Amino acid sequence: MTGDTARSPLAPARFPDLPVIGGVQFASTASGIRYSGRDDVMLALLTSGSAVAGVFTRSATRSASVLDCQEKIGLPPEGGAAIIVNSGNANAFTGQSGVLATQAVIKNVAQTFDLAIQRVFSSSTGVIGEPLPYGRLVAALPDLKQRLQPTAIKAAAEAIMTTDTFAKGASGQIEKDGKLVRIAGIAKGSGMIAPDMATMLVYIFTDAEIDQAELQSMVRALSDVTFNCITVDSDTSTSDSLLVAATGASGVEITGADDPFKAALHGVMRDLAHQVVRDGEGASKFVEIEVSGAANARDAHVHAMAIANSPLVKTAIAGEDPNWGRVVMAIGKSGAAAERDLLTIRFGDILVAENGWVAPDYDEDQAAAYMTAVELRITVDLGLGAGNAVVWTCDLTHRYIEINADYRS
Amino acid sequence: MTGDTARSPLAPARFPDLPVIGGVQFASTASGIRYSGRDDVMLALLTSGSAVAGVFTRSATRSASVLDCQEKIGLPPEGGAAIIVNSGNANAFTGQSGVLATQAVIKNVAQTFDLAIQRVFSSSTGVIGEPLPYGRLVAALPDLKQRLQPTAIKAAAEAIMTTDTFAKGASGQIEKDGKLVRIAGIAKGSGMIAPDMATMLVYIFTDAEIDQAELQSMVRALSDVTFNCITVDSDTSTSDSLLVAATGASGVEITGADDPFKAALHGVMRDLAHQVVRDGEGASKFVEIEVSGAANARDAHVHAMAIANSPLVKTAIAGEDPNWGRVVMAIGKSGAAAERDLLTIRFGDILVAENGWVAPDYDEDQAAAYMTAVELRITVDLGLGAGNAVVWTCDLTHRYIEINADYRS
Repeated sequence: MTGDTARSPLAPARFPDLPVIGGVQFASTASGIRYSGRDDVMLALLTSGSAVAGVFTRSATRSASVLDCQEKIGLPPEGGAAIIVNSGNANAFTGQSGVLATQAVIKNVAQTFDLAIQRVFSSSTGVIGEPLPYGRLVAALPDLKQRLQPTAIKAAAEAIMTTDTFAKGASGQIEKDGKLVRIAGIAKGSGMIAPDMATMLVYIFTDAEIDQAELQSMVRALSDVTFNCITVDSDTSTSDSLLVAATGASGVEITGADDPFKAALHGVMRDLAHQVVRDGEGASKFVEIEVSGAANARDAHVHAMAIANSPLVKTAIAGEDPNWGRVVMAIGKSGAAAERDLLTIRFGDILVAENGWVAPDYDEDQAAAYMTAVELRITVDLGLGAGNAVVWTCDLTHRYIEINADYRS
Repeated sequence: MTGDTARSPLAPARFPDLPVIGGVQFASTASGIRYSGRDDVMLALLTSGSAVAGVFTRSATRSASVLDCQEKIGLPPEGGAAIIVNSGNANAFTGQSGVLATQAVIKNVAQTFDLAIQRVFSSSTGVIGEPLPYGRLVAALPDLKQRLQPTAIKAAAEAIMTTDTFAKGASGQIEKDGKLVRIAGIAKGSGMIAPDMATMLVYIFTDAEIDQAELQSMVRALSDVTFNCITVDSDTSTSDSLLVAATGASGVEITGADDPFKAALHGVMRDLAHQVVRDGEGASKFVEIEVSGAANARDAHVHAMAIANSPLVKTAIAGEDPNWGRVVMAIGKSGAAAERDLLTIRFGDILVAENGWVAPDYDEDQAAAYMTAVELRITVDLGLGAGNAVVWTCDLTHRYIEINADYRS
């Protein structure tokens, strides 16, 4: 599946210049797990005492690496730490042999880099259900050790790509007490789950000095308004993982109450989340959906996701059709509270529907012209309360069907 | 949208011969609401004392007709009754004017056929958000009255079609105390909601003599294992309606405990539900999904629907790809209880996965050959309990995208 995909029309112009994060070194190489002629493994080595926070898929069929990471998040940050990620094989639904493969990789990383086993985090992404040839990963560790350098984050972003059409990176920084605190992150993902190449993976690094529990709490709250607010096709990977590592190298102490840092981290997470949507399989439009006036925030999110996941809404967007009836339908089916006659719907700034019917001044030609844009915004006010949510999605196109149905000959 | 669609490849060979149901007369005609050159309104007139049961969409944005029907179901069956249905305009999301249009139609039907207003049931299907030209419906009533005849059910099935590619009918009968009890039903629907032509509508008639409350309870229970177990695209109409009318003309008394009658009604409802899936937008495969061994029946249904609604499962089926990893993914994301290592997955009779991994004897070529069939069966055993569910769906094809995205020029 890799190689035959042109760069997404929604991709940023280029990979951003990411700042060097003190206390982190990166390495990547080609271990030959599945692909030839490209890197397929990356390692991030974190300085002693780094805090690592993580949020993972809630899938009941999650992978061995995810289960292992979940056990380790929250343990004391003693000594250095490492994150090792391979592409080409997801090591998901591989039974007990998958667990043993993950354990073997972790044990060898710990030995090679002199780390405690509970400080080695791993992810795998690629085909499901095939045994991970972990020996190739283990054999690549000396090479990875030799290649470590603080500036190699872009190559790391490239090594973890599967069906992605572009490498994804984002950064932020704040100044506190006259010192800079830097954040740099990378992600992969091209659909909640790509054809057989599953998974969204996100790794964010900062030189902030922050307690693990406070970082974990911040990351969990921010993931609820970033990565948990995107959808490409409503399907959820067995391996989705977000890890945030704080090395403390800036010497700047950050707490959970630090709003500028939280805002900067939020910005990096939102940027990476948007890039995953922009690389959604077959995507030709980037769509922001905001629901306000819901009975509560949860209802707002349920409505927004019902709109974002509706195949009929997504195909209408692909067809540049201002089909507001389908938005009404999606709200109706979501299961969350709504009153038909209190709905207000806008496409961009265009008032489409209100008071239970099409708006008196609605001009279909104007709305159709708006829908030709590449970036769209649909807003719905439910008129019930103060609940608000914003989610992001893409359209559903022929290319999605091609990618997911047509490749088998 | 109508007219340019070839008959679904999954359609039955022909419309079935439906039995005449004593106590019901049908009429249909062309009122010119939207279409030209075809009937677009049907009326069923029910003899005095007929019991009418109904089940409707749970959408929060449901149409004026649905709200009106819901108020009337369960009122005493005094005098005759009528069901009037138009295609071409859904009268949904049309605000207060939509309510007035429905009331005007019902009042005129009551006058024309000498019925109480609370005994007139209506449905509308077609474009959303446009005012229903109800004057044309009212003007057609004398013509409908003249055309009434007991044998005109097939024409009625044709009059209510929108994007349907074939008219849908099914029948059943039982013998009790030496007498026949007959059931005949018609349906329309081509997706949970068709492009702008929303809605699944189902009308079933029987000459059984049955109490309204018992019929209602039976219909509700049977709809949970028939119409509530089908999905084309996970989207839900604003107007879905099922009405079941029992005229009593057979002189055979039926109670809720009458298993042969219940089984016959179940058969008619399942047959019509399958026909709606077989006319699913763009469908090229008919798929039965059975989940057993769930913690309870609700969990089994949630898992089965998660598989049936997954765009990645549906595109894999379209591509004739035995991609069992996507079935694992759908189970994992459904939110209902599952244990990865207890799953057993079969495509037809082929054991695909068990014990948390691919089955030792699994042969990909054999599975790929199975996937070329037009009718497929996917079974999952969760190994947890006794919960069981069966649902039906179709694949997700280029034709679905064409129908829903490409028609706007």
